[in-house]
Amino acid sequence: MGIKKRIKKIQATLRRKKIDAVIICQPQNRRYLSGYTAPDHDISESSGVLLIPARRSPLLLTDFRFQIQAEQEAVEMEVVLYPKGLPALLKHLLPERGIKSLAFESHYTLHSTAEKLLILCKALSIALIPMEGLVERMRIIKDESEIDLLRHSVHLNEEVFLEAFSTISPDRTELDIAIAIENSMRMKGAESPSFDTITATGKRSALPHAVPGNVNVLNNQPLMIDMGLILYGYCSDMTRTFVPGRADAQFLKIHRLVRSAQLAAIKKIRAGVNAAAIDKVARQVINDAGYGKYFGHALGHGVGLAVHEGPSLSSRNRKQLRAGMIITVEPGIYLPGWGGVRLENMVVVREDGCELLNRDTTWLDL
Amino acid sequence: MGIKKRIKKIQATLRRKKIDAVIICQPQNRRYLSGYTAPDHDISESSGVLLIPARRSPLLLTDFRFQIQAEQEAVEMEVVLYPKGLPALLKHLLPERGIKSLAFESHYTLHSTAEKLLILCKALSIALIPMEGLVERMRIIKDESEIDLLRHSVHLNEEVFLEAFSTISPDRTELDIAIAIENSMRMKGAESPSFDTITATGKRSALPHAVPGNVNVLNNQPLMIDMGLILYGYCSDMTRTFVPGRADAQFLKIHRLVRSAQLAAIKKIRAGVNAAAIDKVARQVINDAGYGKYFGHALGHGVGLAVHEGPSLSSRNRKQLRAGMIITVEPGIYLPGWGGVRLENMVVVREDGCELLNRDTTWLDL
Repeated sequence: MGIKKRIKKIQATLRRKKIDAVIICQPQNRRYLSGYTAPDHDISESSGVLLIPARRSPLLLTDFRFQIQAEQEAVEMEVVLYPKGLPALLKHLLPERGIKSLAFESHYTLHSTAEKLLILCKALSIALIPMEGLVERMRIIKDESEIDLLRHSVHLNEEVFLEAFSTISPDRTELDIAIAIENSMRMKGAESPSFDTITATGKRSALPHAVPGNVNVLNNQPLMIDMGLILYGYCSDMTRTFVPGRADAQFLKIHRLVRSAQLAAIKKIRAGVNAAAIDKVARQVINDAGYGKYFGHALGHGVGLAVHEGPSLSSRNRKQLRAGMIITVEPGIYLPGWGGVRLENMVVVREDGCELLNRDTTWLDL
Repeated sequence: MGIKKRIKKIQATLRRKKIDAVIICQPQNRRYLSGYTAPDHDISESSGVLLIPARRSPLLLTDFRFQIQAEQEAVEMEVVLYPKGLPALLKHLLPERGIKSLAFESHYTLHSTAEKLLILCKALSIALIPMEGLVERMRIIKDESEIDLLRHSVHLNEEVFLEAFSTISPDRTELDIAIAIENSMRMKGAESPSFDTITATGKRSALPHAVPGNVNVLNNQPLMIDMGLILYGYCSDMTRTFVPGRADAQFLKIHRLVRSAQLAAIKKIRAGVNAAAIDKVARQVINDAGYGKYFGHALGHGVGLAVHEGPSLSSRNRKQLRAGMIITVEPGIYLPGWGGVRLENMVVVREDGCELLNRDTTWLDL
């Protein structure tokens, strides 16, 4: 679906809800609806917003620093600058365009910003309407061209992993492996990592969100690598856990258990199944082996323009999976004082099952 | 000022305002008041919050994934987990601790989160009070131990720059220079870059926020490098613009103009002077030479645990500078179709002037 079609869909929703316009500020939503790729340095330092009226052409509002990039990338819309800040521009623009009701993204607008917007809208007799998930509901289902981009992202991520994998030895530290991985991602054309690379050796692999340290990789102990990149906007996310040197019986046991939980879940994924039911399938395998309390997180999450997006594969998500969703399947077992094993792949939900996006199976089946 | 003293200061403010407790969620504020270093992956994916009661010990509330790190780092406070999410924990914790009024950080809380918090507080008959800048007002003044950390961060950043600088040639691309810089930061002990490194060659240097591309550095044309790192939590931020090969008369003219604007501003910085007046001094130098309209951004900003924080050195900030503030001084001239020059140093505001944190003057005075 091209950008024009996406905008039309949003406009149709606005008309159905009798809302005159919406402000889109969430960076991935902004990119999805415009092609403008600038990230926000921070939620309080916006690189711009889209103003999408229900019945007129959309605008990209930004400042001086991003003008050239905005004009080059957001080819479907007019770029308007706000030299005195966004509120000052909106004060003129909203009445000028006849906007009497304005929606904003409640889940990506700061409370303090919403308060200022409210004061502005009151003064202009404009109804201000908080909205959640307007664009995310579209983004959650990927079309084939998006799936293709996600596939490329996964494959490039695997290529980077395999290259790094071949150089791992006890001479290397967690930190320099992580740096080499992120390096290689960018040299191979990724925009950036999709999150901070995790490399955790030995006991440290029991911290699901370990920060790579200046510590050497331990021989004969688990090494967990969780890595992802952004390619043409689309994210990948993959975890491998393996043993440099020789894996002992305990590692093999835990690894095989995590892998069978993963395979059991993948086997059940298809359109129409509840997300919670998939989480349960994997959890059951780990529970049955007596390790249930060491699997403390959800089974997976959606991936797209954001590395973490809907749907969540957790016991709390009772919604059905739908064809075109892309999700991670990442069971893990974390034993304090010993270490952890997590294995993560990405799949596309299809009508009759699911399609694995990963090609590489290095160290998955021991 | 140690963490205990900082907490006591916050608690004194709460008592003065007759507020029973505050929730601190902004990552740098959280770190400042606890020592807990985890960043947030995203504002919607919090690594935890502090609950600081006015009269009792503070708590760090987080989830399973961060437990070990939280306990290791936030040694002054109890760590409490929220396996079912923060609202579920607060529902019990707030009444249990006798909290009848609760402040939250309006400038780092999503509108949708604030709405949920409001519903929770209403149900518990707790007054919910939006607050802005409670911790930032403390952070804006650095004590000598913080200034020392900032100095180290600046010096390490300079070391990285000089190393990169010595390898620059037309064989290199913007992208690989940026990667080498970020690499070197981390190998030398930085936690991470403090923002995405900017390397922009030729005309591209006219984009103040250029993204490094796969383009070779041009001989005899401007190369702008804007870089910073985080060391022990504290940020540096520095820009240099120079010419690989031979600088022409136009470059020398623009560079000298920007440098004299910078020096004029630095000369005027001292406690008690208005921020806007400093911006004006630099702008005047550039205006007088006829380039005013090519200097489209503010002169500088505060730096500390965040790379962009208060005070802003802009025409809109009428507040007085105070001793212990740390600010960048970064005038720039951007000529579309030709390129740009920006020079950025960091200074500490002192009672009788300012102290330059930068040591390196490579290519500053041509």
